[in-house]
Amino acid sequence: MESPNPSTAGKPIRCKAAVCRKAGEPLAIEEINVDPPRAREARIRVICTSICNTDVSFWRMTSSPGGFFPRILGHEAVGVVESVGEGVTELKTGDTVVPVFLPDCGGECADCRSENSNLCSKLPFKLSPGMPRDGTSRFADLRGNVIHNFLSVSGFSEYTVVDVAHLTKVDSSAPPERACLLNCGIAAGVGAAWRKANVQKGSTVAIFGLGSIGLAVAEGARLCGAGRVIGIDAYPEKLEMAKKFGVTEFVNPVDCGDKSLSQVINEMTGGGADSCFECAGSPSLMEQAYASCRKGWGKTIVLGVGGEGSEMKLKCMDVLQSGRTLTGALFGGLKPKTHIPILLQRYIHKELELDKFVTHEMEFEDINKAFDLLVEGKCLRCVIWLYRPDQSAACLMPRVV
Amino acid sequence: MESPNPSTAGKPIRCKAAVCRKAGEPLAIEEINVDPPRAREARIRVICTSICNTDVSFWRMTSSPGGFFPRILGHEAVGVVESVGEGVTELKTGDTVVPVFLPDCGGECADCRSENSNLCSKLPFKLSPGMPRDGTSRFADLRGNVIHNFLSVSGFSEYTVVDVAHLTKVDSSAPPERACLLNCGIAAGVGAAWRKANVQKGSTVAIFGLGSIGLAVAEGARLCGAGRVIGIDAYPEKLEMAKKFGVTEFVNPVDCGDKSLSQVINEMTGGGADSCFECAGSPSLMEQAYASCRKGWGKTIVLGVGGEGSEMKLKCMDVLQSGRTLTGALFGGLKPKTHIPILLQRYIHKELELDKFVTHEMEFEDINKAFDLLVEGKCLRCVIWLYRPDQSAACLMPRVV
Ligand SMILES: NC(=O)c1ccc[n+]([C@@H]2O[C@H](COP(=O)([O-])OP(=O)(O)OC[C@H]3O[C@@H](n4cnc5c(N)ncnc54)[C@H](O)[C@@H]3O)[C@@H](O)[C@H]2O)c1
Ligand SMILES: NC(=O)c1ccc[n+]([C@@H]2O[C@H](COP(=O)([O-])OP(=O)(O)OC[C@H]3O[C@@H](n4cnc5c(N)ncnc54)[C@H](O)[C@@H]3O)[C@@H](O)[C@H]2O)c1
Ligand SMILES: [Zn+2]
Ligand SMILES: [Zn+2]
Ligand SMILES: [Zn+2]
Ligand SMILES: [Zn+2]
Repeated sequence: MESPNPSTAGKPIRCKAAVCRKAGEPLAIEEINVDPPRAREARIRVICTSICNTDVSFWRMTSSPGGFFPRILGHEAVGVVESVGEGVTELKTGDTVVPVFLPDCGGECADCRSENSNLCSKLPFKLSPGMPRDGTSRFADLRGNVIHNFLSVSGFSEYTVVDVAHLTKVDSSAPPERACLLNCGIAAGVGAAWRKANVQKGSTVAIFGLGSIGLAVAEGARLCGAGRVIGIDAYPEKLEMAKKFGVTEFVNPVDCGDKSLSQVINEMTGGGADSCFECAGSPSLMEQAYASCRKGWGKTIVLGVGGEGSEMKLKCMDVLQSGRTLTGALFGGLKPKTHIPILLQRYIHKELELDKFVTHEMEFEDINKAFDLLVEGKCLRCVIWLYRPDQSAACLMPRVV
Repeated sequence: MESPNPSTAGKPIRCKAAVCRKAGEPLAIEEINVDPPRAREARIRVICTSICNTDVSFWRMTSSPGGFFPRILGHEAVGVVESVGEGVTELKTGDTVVPVFLPDCGGECADCRSENSNLCSKLPFKLSPGMPRDGTSRFADLRGNVIHNFLSVSGFSEYTVVDVAHLTKVDSSAPPERACLLNCGIAAGVGAAWRKANVQKGSTVAIFGLGSIGLAVAEGARLCGAGRVIGIDAYPEKLEMAKKFGVTEFVNPVDCGDKSLSQVINEMTGGGADSCFECAGSPSLMEQAYASCRKGWGKTIVLGVGGEGSEMKLKCMDVLQSGRTLTGALFGGLKPKTHIPILLQRYIHKELELDKFVTHEMEFEDINKAFDLLVEGKCLRCVIWLYRPDQSAACLMPRVV
């Protein structure tokens, strides 16, 4: 544990960040200024971050509601608290924290007090380019121009400022290069199987879309003791990787001939999978997932982010007569402050396998290569190192502006 | 308990039935022949029956899949076993039974063994005009022409033959004129609140459609200790009756001005009802119900039978980000053989209030008046008496053909 650094606390810090100045252009590693944390915020020294398709989507996004530039992307970071703002009692300098896009006010609202919701209503999740409480950003370039925030995290910076509602404190002995997988898609997939679907031992799971979210569902299903895990993807090459995640059977919708995908899955399973997970964001795949789950007790969990305004259709008689359940799982239904520490413990106890998700690792200055890998579909998770805690104290010292 | 009647067992019986000869025409009380029960069937002396809108719908239906004439309608009966067919060990002559449209094979299939499904897969529910196992009917008119079966019950007959999968044995001391409410809509509404939504004490319930199914949901919600019960109906006159069922607030979609129904309910409840029940069969009302339930933990249960081919639409982002659950509840999710006896006990113990559903009572020969009342919306449930167990033994004696 460090004591508050008197030379930086309360003052702006100058550090390096990967700034996205224009949609789709390589990130520029620049010097920026990071304001001190305001009330209920903490400034974080970022240790490492992973990248996910959401970063890529917003990097590419030219128009609203998502496109704000210049911006510091990144939302799968792990860091150490450098200093805290007014009224922060739950965190102190030196704490290891996992910032998360999903807020968790820790009990000030009915949702955060409930076991059954992970959708904080005190600081509702929104795609704002600023901080959750006041909408402003703590970042500026050296000419004093605002650089926008991303998903309340902005992890592609040596220092970032995060609201306490978006910070989960974790055991400082946990490997940061694995803890950073627990604040977005990987945890979401595992959580959807574990908490939202409550996958039963020996049951049959069908996963629609075998990207990293789908594979994380497979890992969650494995953890719960699922019997059969059926993977569905339009790209047969996804199967090789999926096998490592316990996907035992594979269906390509293109190969279903004159049968629908759900017909094929109903036949394979004698009436449908016990739980179906949509991990692609396609309305028609959501409909097929719904139609592929078992009447009576079957559950379909939507994890994929559908396009703006897209709709799925359900036959009313089917809803009534099948008795199936449909639900959605932002962050897999996990409550950040409750469930991230549990998942991390399960990783440390070698129950949850996170290593297999990390296909690449690189230094901060190579971040654009990581984007390329993701765009080319060659990577599940690439861990980017911003600061190795074993570096000499000198390198560690932030520079005050 | 009676011993098998040697003069009727194994032989056809001649008795009176209300036969629907043509769509929408008054039922004709005729003499018919009822075959003896085949394997896994029982022949039942019907004591009484209530009528529901489903009888009216099929009475009116001119085309397939529903319109089969001549037919004996009725599916909310209670009766006494007259004789049983081959292989029937669970029932004997004299047992009081509640026939149900929904099959329950009692454990031969995975669904009937599971706590989480009420959709028997051994004898799947279908709208067939015959018996569930062989598709034939046990009824014929005196010229020998087949009279079709209805929903595996055909309760508008002094005698009917029912498959054991569609029969629940109940305590013979229970009042039949209340037990007959437990095999269709009233039980479905109560069950949807009790079992499927698991309405919590103090929670807020919204009921879309205040016919007898909606009012049964209100009764189920009352039984579960709901705090607020909001009723929605396009007819303001429904409110008077609804008050007797604990509906404390009323919304008429017509009066919502430029707000949507769900906006109004979200405002009334500070973010949505904990559980919403669609009891009208309207796709747009299903969508509004879904949009009216609380993010995070809210559940929407569809009970209404949507029109053939009708669809409801959900915004994909809404499914993901709201975390709400949508499901359907045929027979309210109840397992006939397990839950009908429990509900009957709860009635006997004065927990479940059934009396308030019975707005009318009449003799068998007046059955067409009961149809009129239902069509005019003047009746929740009308109990029709076919045989009063206190009648003299002479009247009781069935006549062999
Ligand atoms: N719920 C959450 O909290 C959460 C968190 C992170 C990401 N997501 C979302 O999850 C989804 C998946 O993310 P990912 O990173 O794994 O994406 P991905 O693009 O790597 O994987 C999606 C996979 O689905 C397959 N696919 C797409 N459409 C298909 C179709 N019609 N038929 C068959 N296969 C199809 C693709 O081939 C691909 O392999 C995205 O929509 C993402 O935004 C959700
Ligand atoms: N799930 C089951 O097992 C089960 C069992 C029996 C009946 N049902 C179905 O339940 C539904 C209700 O049955 P019921 O007998 O109570 O019917 P009902 O016609 O008596 O009641 C329906 C009520 O909904 C109201 N309504 C209809 N459309 C509306 C709209 N758009 N906005 C506001 N109010 C509207 C009507 O005014 C009416 O009061 C039917 O579809 C029936 O087939 C289901
Ligand atoms: Zn909260
Ligand atoms: Zn992510
Ligand atoms: Zn069964
Ligand atoms: Zn009915």
